[in-house]
Amino acid sequence: MSEPAGLLSKVYTSTVNSYTMVFFSKNPWFGLLLMVVSFFDVYAGAAGLLSLLTANGLAWGLGLNRRNILSGFYGFNSLLTGLGLGLSFQPGPEFYLLLVATALATLFITLAFEGLLSKYALPYLTLPFLIAIWIATLAARNYSTMIPGESGIYTLSTIYERGGPLVVRIYEWFGDVSWPLFIKTYFKSLGAIFFQYHLFAGLLIAAGLLFYSRIAFLLSVTGFASAWGFYLLIGANMNELNYGFIGFNHILTAIAIGGFFMIASGWSFLWVILVTPIISMITAGFAELLGIIQLPVYSLPFNLMVLLFLYAMKFREKMQMKPEPVAVQHYSPELNLYIGQNSGERFRNKSYLPVSLPFFGVWTVNQGHNGEFTHQEEWRHAWDFVITDEAGKEFSGEGAKVSDYYCFDKPVTAPANGWVEEIVDSIDDNPPGEINLGRNWGNTIIIRHSERLYSKLSHLKKGSIKVKQGSYVHQGQVIASCGNSGRSPYPHLHFQLQSTPHIGSATLNYPVSQYLSYQE
Amino acid sequence: MSEPAGLLSKVYTSTVNSYTMVFFSKNPWFGLLLMVVSFFDVYAGAAGLLSLLTANGLAWGLGLNRRNILSGFYGFNSLLTGLGLGLSFQPGPEFYLLLVATALATLFITLAFEGLLSKYALPYLTLPFLIAIWIATLAARNYSTMIPGESGIYTLSTIYERGGPLVVRIYEWFGDVSWPLFIKTYFKSLGAIFFQYHLFAGLLIAAGLLFYSRIAFLLSVTGFASAWGFYLLIGANMNELNYGFIGFNHILTAIAIGGFFMIASGWSFLWVILVTPIISMITAGFAELLGIIQLPVYSLPFNLMVLLFLYAMKFREKMQMKPEPVAVQHYSPELNLYIGQNSGERFRNKSYLPVSLPFFGVWTVNQGHNGEFTHQEEWRHAWDFVITDEAGKEFSGEGAKVSDYYCFDKPVTAPANGWVEEIVDSIDDNPPGEINLGRNWGNTIIIRHSERLYSKLSHLKKGSIKVKQGSYVHQGQVIASCGNSGRSPYPHLHFQLQSTPHIGSATLNYPVSQYLSYQE
Amino acid sequence: MSEPAGLLSKVYTSTVNSYTMVFFSKNPWFGLLLMVVSFFDVYAGAAGLLSLLTANGLAWGLGLNRRNILSGFYGFNSLLTGLGLGLSFQPGPEFYLLLVATALATLFITLAFEGLLSKYALPYLTLPFLIAIWIATLAARNYSTMIPGESGIYTLSTIYERGGPLVVRIYEWFGDVSWPLFIKTYFKSLGAIFFQYHLFAGLLIAAGLLFYSRIAFLLSVTGFASAWGFYLLIGANMNELNYGFIGFNHILTAIAIGGFFMIASGWSFLWVILVTPIISMITAGFAELLGIIQLPVYSLPFNLMVLLFLYAMKFREKMQMKPEPVAVQHYSPELNLYIGQNSGERFRNKSYLPVSLPFFGVWTVNQGHNGEFTHQEEWRHAWDFVITDEAGKEFSGEGAKVSDYYCFDKPVTAPANGWVEEIVDSIDDNPPGEINLGRNWGNTIIIRHSERLYSKLSHLKKGSIKVKQGSYVHQGQVIASCGNSGRSPYPHLHFQLQSTPHIGSATLNYPVSQYLSYQE
Repeated sequence: MSEPAGLLSKVYTSTVNSYTMVFFSKNPWFGLLLMVVSFFDVYAGAAGLLSLLTANGLAWGLGLNRRNILSGFYGFNSLLTGLGLGLSFQPGPEFYLLLVATALATLFITLAFEGLLSKYALPYLTLPFLIAIWIATLAARNYSTMIPGESGIYTLSTIYERGGPLVVRIYEWFGDVSWPLFIKTYFKSLGAIFFQYHLFAGLLIAAGLLFYSRIAFLLSVTGFASAWGFYLLIGANMNELNYGFIGFNHILTAIAIGGFFMIASGWSFLWVILVTPIISMITAGFAELLGIIQLPVYSLPFNLMVLLFLYAMKFREKMQMKPEPVAVQHYSPELNLYIGQNSGERFRNKSYLPVSLPFFGVWTVNQGHNGEFTHQEEWRHAWDFVITDEAGKEFSGEGAKVSDYYCFDKPVTAPANGWVEEIVDSIDDNPPGEINLGRNWGNTIIIRHSERLYSKLSHLKKGSIKVKQGSYVHQGQVIASCGNSGRSPYPHLHFQLQSTPHIGSATLNYPVSQYLSYQE
Repeated sequence: MSEPAGLLSKVYTSTVNSYTMVFFSKNPWFGLLLMVVSFFDVYAGAAGLLSLLTANGLAWGLGLNRRNILSGFYGFNSLLTGLGLGLSFQPGPEFYLLLVATALATLFITLAFEGLLSKYALPYLTLPFLIAIWIATLAARNYSTMIPGESGIYTLSTIYERGGPLVVRIYEWFGDVSWPLFIKTYFKSLGAIFFQYHLFAGLLIAAGLLFYSRIAFLLSVTGFASAWGFYLLIGANMNELNYGFIGFNHILTAIAIGGFFMIASGWSFLWVILVTPIISMITAGFAELLGIIQLPVYSLPFNLMVLLFLYAMKFREKMQMKPEPVAVQHYSPELNLYIGQNSGERFRNKSYLPVSLPFFGVWTVNQGHNGEFTHQEEWRHAWDFVITDEAGKEFSGEGAKVSDYYCFDKPVTAPANGWVEEIVDSIDDNPPGEINLGRNWGNTIIIRHSERLYSKLSHLKKGSIKVKQGSYVHQGQVIASCGNSGRSPYPHLHFQLQSTPHIGSATLNYPVSQYLSYQE
Repeated sequence: MSEPAGLLSKVYTSTVNSYTMVFFSKNPWFGLLLMVVSFFDVYAGAAGLLSLLTANGLAWGLGLNRRNILSGFYGFNSLLTGLGLGLSFQPGPEFYLLLVATALATLFITLAFEGLLSKYALPYLTLPFLIAIWIATLAARNYSTMIPGESGIYTLSTIYERGGPLVVRIYEWFGDVSWPLFIKTYFKSLGAIFFQYHLFAGLLIAAGLLFYSRIAFLLSVTGFASAWGFYLLIGANMNELNYGFIGFNHILTAIAIGGFFMIASGWSFLWVILVTPIISMITAGFAELLGIIQLPVYSLPFNLMVLLFLYAMKFREKMQMKPEPVAVQHYSPELNLYIGQNSGERFRNKSYLPVSLPFFGVWTVNQGHNGEFTHQEEWRHAWDFVITDEAGKEFSGEGAKVSDYYCFDKPVTAPANGWVEEIVDSIDDNPPGEINLGRNWGNTIIIRHSERLYSKLSHLKKGSIKVKQGSYVHQGQVIASCGNSGRSPYPHLHFQLQSTPHIGSATLNYPVSQYLSYQE
């Protein structure tokens, strides 16, 4: 379906986003920078890239949600797994076989965590990476073809190849530079997020972070300084910070709870400091535990702390503004802050983005029969509309032909401005009383109104869709006709609002404005 | 209630099914064969049988779902636990006390996993066995009366007793036979599923498997060969396969994802091969982990792999046919394949098995009051029907007597052909406004229409049921009268479709055909 | 808002309840006794108190549910964590820093378990304590400022200070008393629940237990005797009981399943004995497992056993009375038994506590628009009421002013007798079509009708509330007016019944009696 250029562009987008998603960003320049940094150890970088390409390719082949793939959601954990394995083992055909298998496993584990945690409205972060790399590492000890890598051997030659002698000299100079330990460790901890334990890598990442978001940078420093202070105070093992670079857990947690999942504020910074001892305890505790089997904790403290914190915040009945959760994710602490504040203002006395009903005139919410069957569980915030006459009937005559139904072939309109995200237009309309279980939703249009607001119109008449994928539609514009395709025994219009472009996405709880509801 | 013959027949059915369920089958001959094989080590076999009888008996005494017990769902994990313990420890009164306690624990753990995993529509497989045997094994190290068993000592004498010298000679000959290692290991791995590490046991099981399903047999060979190849290629520890017989994890996974939970196809065989490295990694990784405490991994890799795979497949928005999940389980890869294909055809342009509403004339879906209270969560695909007059009232006069209600004592009909599965007929009808919380559903008929389609009619009038348990009813046949028993403040008919015969089963999302819905 | 006296009283209540909740009680005298016992080791007692005050204070500051805090639900796990840490480490500023951080972590973990387990209607018991103390203990091994405590050093001097030489002599005499080992161990196991491994502590707790509930005392003896017998029989390590005092797991489990979560009966006592071997296996099994990392099992066996048991009991389709779960918790086995029996009688032919609709005259359940949006998931047992005219319209004129709506400013009445639990009265009414997302529920009254039955009336008119917090209201009494505050685009009355006083509590499935429902 996609021409080669389109395919390449999708591969590019999904790849760059997989890098940048590690830092909660969608900034492509930051992603490219991170990719370059990951290649400082060329074999590790290559393993990371191969792993993420495998995961994204498999996700595509499996038929997973395309937007999630493009956003890097299914790639970043595989990227990290690949980087970690690439650094640990020498390359070779057996290694790449294992790498590809681990990428598949990481994808499976990602889906499992997505399913588990989305029920609690929590993100899966890098938990899939942790499970996958631990199992792969343990397993590799039993595989005689896996030879421990000599990390760093390839680094200098790679840098030389790519940057020439000058860059090598810069790189080496950074290794010797006599900056304060605190600062050196901060940068190295940043680099450690991409398995690059060198000052230069951290410096580049810090620059990218600053470029991507000054709030995120400030949070990273705050989190790290708070950790440093606590380690000194409590007499913890400074080597964890100095040589284990485990401080990146404090950095990532600070960004996550200080500005990404919560709106940045004095309160969010306060919490960054308050949770520092807990992150340290998780780190030290699990280091003891995993030490038995010689596994590193990696980003486990970050994962546990962020999940505990975000979940706890949901239990607040008061003080929900201290700090306030991010309602619509803009992948930037700054945007989350500014837009969050504005919408806060707006929401206080106004309503949502106005969404109207997707038709003209008076339709009836049909809940007498089908509603009982299909608008359940995850699809409960949905409506089925039909047109009824004064007697409450949906059709004239016998109702044996679809054209007997009042709503059949009536115009369907865009409920709000937006971009046409997806179109299905080739499914036959069923005769009344029959349903097509192979293609539940039938002919369908999905419209993207904002980052997290999509509308879906389903069971449309075959061949009736008047718009194209990617085109912009205006509220009220006629875009299709009501039909009887898919799991629809009688002509009706299915309308729902959802937060993702999934065809099978759960529906969103959203008020439709500008209509009058008549109830009889 | 049951006459002795009926009881014996239930014990027999639940017992044989517990054996055969280990191989995803319901074939009684296969079950009997597996039972015989399990008795090659007579004490292990006896412990297995005692453990499963205990679990099934306790399940019965606790009042758990009878059909689940008869299907072996609550017995097969206890069977495996018993076999494992019987092989590990010498018999004795203290051993049998521990065995019975472990069987109870296994049952409790089974229920916990059933509850947890059914929320994700996933099977619990042999996870309960794993948890139970690991804890019992660890605990037994602290119990001085538990003496490690000398596995195999009793085997020959048992075989002699049962089969005479000829069978002993056959058995011994099999031990010495100089077949290729691959073939010997395949058979021994099959035997290991029932804790019988002998060629002869595996050969019998293979014969039973071939008899039960040629697809399952082919899958078992495919899965094992794929594992063998991967072990050679990656340089894994062949002893895991050769002497640990851990290869049965590949065999069971192949059957599960290749033909039991998915419809057998080229795609399903491809996946059997694709997941081989992941099974091996899980095996090697957890062997390292559990090795710390000297516990075997048993069937953990099979369990994790199947769950990860099945769950991941649910996230597909496209390619749902590659491979296609089994919608209605027939406990045979062949039936799943043939019936799945046919119903696929049928569903494409036809509707479901026709189910009609369980009454004559015009009734009203009563959602004004009670619907709010009880048709929630797991019971949401249910209807409450009443008869209303033109003013919308449900009764004439004061409504103080049940006979004031229009629907009271009106005939209730079978919604489709089927067998009467269960009857409750002795609960008093409540006066209007009162409810009986001790017997929520009141007088009830459950009808089985197909393997996974049951209908339930509740709150029936005391003594009104006109059919007997086990009898066959025809669609439209009058089977009872509408009443006011159970949690019913006012006479009404509760009607729902469900996938199990549980009285408290969750409802099914199923279109009721052949009716016209008037909505006012 | 609270005057100092009110604040002090809240601190006192939440503190005492945190002690007593460990024994499933709400008896303040028992709580005070337990607090005194905890101070036998003065530093441990102080650490426990500080930890629970921290947790309760943070819970208050975070805006968590006030009633849960007052009931001690958020404090008792932190109390136990503090006691355990106070006994393990010497006091000092770094220790108190760690203690406060652990209290915060315990609170976060408590919320996580509350969220996870409440979906299965299971209690979180002392699981948060376990996770928190294990991680803190492991972490402290890496903190050089944490110096292992010399438990017992401070005990005698404390007792001397508090009780004088006589009490010291009594205390020492108890240490030497030559009672049978069984009895001494029973008392010491009781003491171990509060980390006090001394006969005297156990004796005091036993006295308190007897005073609080004779059934609980009898259960504690039954559970302990059953464990003692099983240990002897199976040849288990008696030191676990004699010196590890792990027997308290049997004591707590016996109280929990014998009379607290289940109604005490011959059946419940039978189960106390039946599960004894399983508790022992869990204890021995996890002692092996946790022994690797030198962590005690603490109350893990109690937690696992109670959860497994309670969850398994839910799967019963028959025999639900053997034993019967406690429907309304009275925090006393005696009350659970007597009230449970009576309500059992009552419920068999009567209905619930009568709750009527919260208004006069005929209102309409408005489910045409808003119902679709907000009464979903956890808020599904809720109603929105409006007044409609004969044409089904909710307003006269244009509907542009709130006063156009028929229901606006109409009186709202108390649905049943009860105490006003909470009031919000200062939120502006929205103009029609606009909503206030910052304050979803708008002006609200919550009334407590019984321990587990609350009603909530929301979106009330600003300034219309006629009752005060804490006052008693009678069914039918006018308490406010219908309004349009909060997430309400058009004036309506939101009414729901719930089991907790949370503003955002899930709704309860409860029949409203004494009303006629007209359906058109």
